[in-house]
Amino acid sequence: MIIGIDVGGTNIKSGLLDSNNNLVFDQSRPTGTTMDQILNNLEEIVIELKNRAETNFGSTISGVGIGVPGVVNKGLDHVFKCTNLGWNDIPLGKILKDRTGFDVFIDNDANLAALAEYYIGSLKDKETGVLLTLGTGVGCGVIINGKPYRGGNGLGLEIGHMVIGENFYNCSCGKNGCFETYASATAIVKHFQKLVDDENVKIDFEISSKEIFERAQKGEELPLKAVERYTDYLALGIVNVINVLDPEVISLGGGVSASGDFLMDKLTKKVTKNLFVEGFPSAVINYASAGNKAGVIGAALLAKEEISK
Amino acid sequence: MIIGIDVGGTNIKSGLLDSNNNLVFDQSRPTGTTMDQILNNLEEIVIELKNRAETNFGSTISGVGIGVPGVVNKGLDHVFKCTNLGWNDIPLGKILKDRTGFDVFIDNDANLAALAEYYIGSLKDKETGVLLTLGTGVGCGVIINGKPYRGGNGLGLEIGHMVIGENFYNCSCGKNGCFETYASATAIVKHFQKLVDDENVKIDFEISSKEIFERAQKGEELPLKAVERYTDYLALGIVNVINVLDPEVISLGGGVSASGDFLMDKLTKKVTKNLFVEGFPSAVINYASAGNKAGVIGAALLAKEEISK
Repeated sequence: MIIGIDVGGTNIKSGLLDSNNNLVFDQSRPTGTTMDQILNNLEEIVIELKNRAETNFGSTISGVGIGVPGVVNKGLDHVFKCTNLGWNDIPLGKILKDRTGFDVFIDNDANLAALAEYYIGSLKDKETGVLLTLGTGVGCGVIINGKPYRGGNGLGLEIGHMVIGENFYNCSCGKNGCFETYASATAIVKHFQKLVDDENVKIDFEISSKEIFERAQKGEELPLKAVERYTDYLALGIVNVINVLDPEVISLGGGVSASGDFLMDKLTKKVTKNLFVEGFPSAVINYASAGNKAGVIGAALLAKEEISK
Repeated sequence: MIIGIDVGGTNIKSGLLDSNNNLVFDQSRPTGTTMDQILNNLEEIVIELKNRAETNFGSTISGVGIGVPGVVNKGLDHVFKCTNLGWNDIPLGKILKDRTGFDVFIDNDANLAALAEYYIGSLKDKETGVLLTLGTGVGCGVIINGKPYRGGNGLGLEIGHMVIGENFYNCSCGKNGCFETYASATAIVKHFQKLVDDENVKIDFEISSKEIFERAQKGEELPLKAVERYTDYLALGIVNVINVLDPEVISLGGGVSASGDFLMDKLTKKVTKNLFVEGFPSAVINYASAGNKAGVIGAALLAKEEISK
């Protein structure tokens, strides 16, 4: 069996993947705040899951895969930077191998979610696919020739920081016009707040992307205005991805993807309108389908792929 | 030997590639205007080069590669669209095979220029590289895992139509803000003309991208202003390519690339300033070096690769 671990800003999810790629056990616990706490938690999780594999499944562990919300090196053992966790230059693979004895493989969490989609979800059997996670930011994972593509320099891709226009606020990276300042959940909340302020409207609900989409779907004017702009720019960014990568499928994950047909119908119309040559085959757009344990499953799949090399 | 043919809007360049990838003979003739003329020219060129290979080099022809300024299907035998030549849906591979007896392989001209750069030029031995041709438009060819990458749907990439901002004129594709409306030779000419008009300046030279760069280098104010904006947006588009594809090398070809260190120094500074994470390894930017016969060489290399499959 393989251990998969998904380190988030709030919780660490983890589980056991069997040889048929089934997640036979999973759990979650708070991430912790200091680096020491997080490392102790990771060590405890590995030992606990190793014991569980032996006791409950009569099985041994052949490796550990870990997803982190940050930038990982080509060797999949060193975390260069995790802004959310405050990590810089952490040899996480070596630390955990020393503490547990297992081989440890690390990758960016969105890359691993894409890997899970490729094995069991929306990118299944596709040679070329892109997963865009639309949450606090815009993350991405790319599959090319049926393999995770991490770029020529191995640090992974940053589609969320592709500049697509001039926006009314700057990105946290310091630039203006990044895709994620238009297409993240944060982006639609910021834009809706701006509409409320500009038009001096009183509202009686707490602003969240979920609330905005639900109210837009009921036909409320201001939320609908925000969703129209949101889908305009999401379509624009997706067409850019088509022009630069031309994947067979672009999957949307993250909180915003709960908006179902209402979002998808608007989006696909706007994408079609902006294609370079109408009528040529181009990416199918769908929702991610590997579920909210995709990060854990993808982490285990990474370890499985690397061990079998 | 292999025949390579590069069909341009004005001239057809062609030549013979030997087994060591040396172009041992090359020539050029006007393209012709009607489809019939062009097809007759292509047939004549193939027969002529076949005879030359036999007579001058005692060699036979094992295949024909052709580059066209347009969109070619996954099978490399069918031209979907060549706006410059007025072609739509032309089974060029079959037509020329019927007329000459040789296997014919077709691809987009920028893809083939990138293939030539990969074998003998600026992308040599790189697993991942992008060639951007900065001319009338912005063309591109991409190498991933040491092979031409034509996207998941096989119609090639259109980095020139990636939207990067809001521009003062629309792209020929109908959209606003396409990379090529900022970074092509045409783009800097249009912007310079706008500066001249807006500031009501009298100029005593004919506006061309070459003239603008030469005068900017001498310190002339208005040309320098145009070059600053040009390099701002070229850097922005290049950083987008880094964020989406993360190639090891991005090579610049086309007319603008004659501007040497003057352009490159400005550009690399602006790219570095806009990288997502400063200090991490990212694409080297250089000039294409396979020369003005890269299209012919790349076409022959395509046929060579396809035949050896």
